[in-house]
Amino acid sequence: MTRSASSGPAFVAVDWGTSSFRAALIGSDGSVLSEVAGPDGILKVEGGDFAGTLRRQAGAWLSATPGLPVLLSGMIGSRNGWVEVPYAPTPADPISLAAGILRQTLDGHPLLFVPGLIHVDAHDVPDVMRGEEVQVLGTCRSLPDAEVVLPGTHSKWVTVRAGRITGFRTFMTGELYAALKGHTILGRLAEGDAHHADGFAAGVLRGYATPALSHALFTARTLPLTGRLAPEAVASYLSGLLIGAEFSGALAHAEPALPHVAVGDARLVDLYRTAATLIGLDLHAGPTHAAVDGLVALARVLDLLPGAAA
Amino acid sequence: MTRSASSGPAFVAVDWGTSSFRAALIGSDGSVLSEVAGPDGILKVEGGDFAGTLRRQAGAWLSATPGLPVLLSGMIGSRNGWVEVPYAPTPADPISLAAGILRQTLDGHPLLFVPGLIHVDAHDVPDVMRGEEVQVLGTCRSLPDAEVVLPGTHSKWVTVRAGRITGFRTFMTGELYAALKGHTILGRLAEGDAHHADGFAAGVLRGYATPALSHALFTARTLPLTGRLAPEAVASYLSGLLIGAEFSGALAHAEPALPHVAVGDARLVDLYRTAATLIGLDLHAGPTHAAVDGLVALARVLDLLPGAAA
Repeated sequence: MTRSASSGPAFVAVDWGTSSFRAALIGSDGSVLSEVAGPDGILKVEGGDFAGTLRRQAGAWLSATPGLPVLLSGMIGSRNGWVEVPYAPTPADPISLAAGILRQTLDGHPLLFVPGLIHVDAHDVPDVMRGEEVQVLGTCRSLPDAEVVLPGTHSKWVTVRAGRITGFRTFMTGELYAALKGHTILGRLAEGDAHHADGFAAGVLRGYATPALSHALFTARTLPLTGRLAPEAVASYLSGLLIGAEFSGALAHAEPALPHVAVGDARLVDLYRTAATLIGLDLHAGPTHAAVDGLVALARVLDLLPGAAA
Repeated sequence: MTRSASSGPAFVAVDWGTSSFRAALIGSDGSVLSEVAGPDGILKVEGGDFAGTLRRQAGAWLSATPGLPVLLSGMIGSRNGWVEVPYAPTPADPISLAAGILRQTLDGHPLLFVPGLIHVDAHDVPDVMRGEEVQVLGTCRSLPDAEVVLPGTHSKWVTVRAGRITGFRTFMTGELYAALKGHTILGRLAEGDAHHADGFAAGVLRGYATPALSHALFTARTLPLTGRLAPEAVASYLSGLLIGAEFSGALAHAEPALPHVAVGDARLVDLYRTAATLIGLDLHAGPTHAAVDGLVALARVLDLLPGAAA
């Protein structure tokens, strides 16, 4: 069965994280009609006035279409967000994620909060994510078997088989970098934050080859101290060390037969692809609108896209 | 040849680190005649007035014995200390360390600054220490073959064979703990700093068993988040994770036939011995005055102890 396409608005897709807010008005054929983005991450919303933020950012769309639904993913559904949505378990796909949605209402608009995911391994050790699961769905619409890498504050390596998220692992790479650079002796010999290709490469290779990270990190002090690394290369070397260690840890558990795809912040995706090349891994760049793509995939399951082909 | 023992003062032994100052008046038979200690670590000395600090802490000893020598080890001989003493290379023993001493004079007293050590591995990667080498000498006066563990901000694992330091590895365990606890999300779910035995044990075992530290660390968030770890256990769990990872990394390179000895801060030595028991390693407690013992061993080489048996 096919239905006639329509360009009328079908829903608002919101990717609302810790430090950023992005929203898109989606047409009933699944296309993006309009977009807004701002720095109103959940930690920046004063007094927890999430409703006020949403009205300010998307108010024109909402008032133009009474009852227009809003589909929200990311940390907005966490304990520190608008409402806490219980994590959905792995394996997960659009149907199981849709089943975990928590519904509220704002000014007559249905608010649909997408759950994060929890993966509990064989040793009863949990790992969690919020927001990335939607980016993975968006990435895997055209790639049902993949290892999806989402670099960031808490990098995620997500295994997808037949369109289902079967497991994932978090690496605290970005947060470690900030804490080490800003609050340890490793930052004191660094001059500047500009990307230094040789320093980054040296760091990636050492971090990838050295099993003990807390030992490898000390080389970010001893190499500049002994004139083996230029002060302006130290920050990139440290970044490389952490990313190299992440690749080492992640690839020890990844399934080598799967294609590897990186999605997220364009600068980080580039950096991770550079690191991958250095260690001989083929890491492709994923779609640039993975979150919107994932929310559209969910909207299909939720019957929010009357005009879209199934 | 034996000489008659004397209780007259022979030299002042100073162990002067980043955050603490310790000095002892040593008799000519090598015994400790008097001791002082204070928080005047090199980072706390205003305006770099190290001479004023030494005069204030040890002035009575110095004025009582004109020309009394002062033997100083630790970060006082670093770039941020009184004078920068070039690192001495491995392998190192009392004779080679004595040869690297940098001499100055204060009010007619010889000041003898002991060098730190640098170890450069087969890949031209350096590691360094300042102060611990003297503690190791003190520990190994009665134990010429050992792996000496010095827990702390930058933990050191030092290999000693036939009384010579042949190599060592640094792990940034203490500094990582402070940065992670104070400046990342891992500190936010922690309640208090009190030692929690079960939390510590769980951390040690997980840190020891998990190769990827930046992944293991995230469990200090997910376990309390999912009710698997009590908030009051989180700080000890994080400490255990880092110490377990240190043991894993260090033991991968240690020579298992050597006895393992921990020296330094009594609380940390206890903690490391608890961790060792959990993973099945026999870790002995070393002497409590290892730094003074090491400076006395150096003083013998320097002929500062006329009354001591050779």
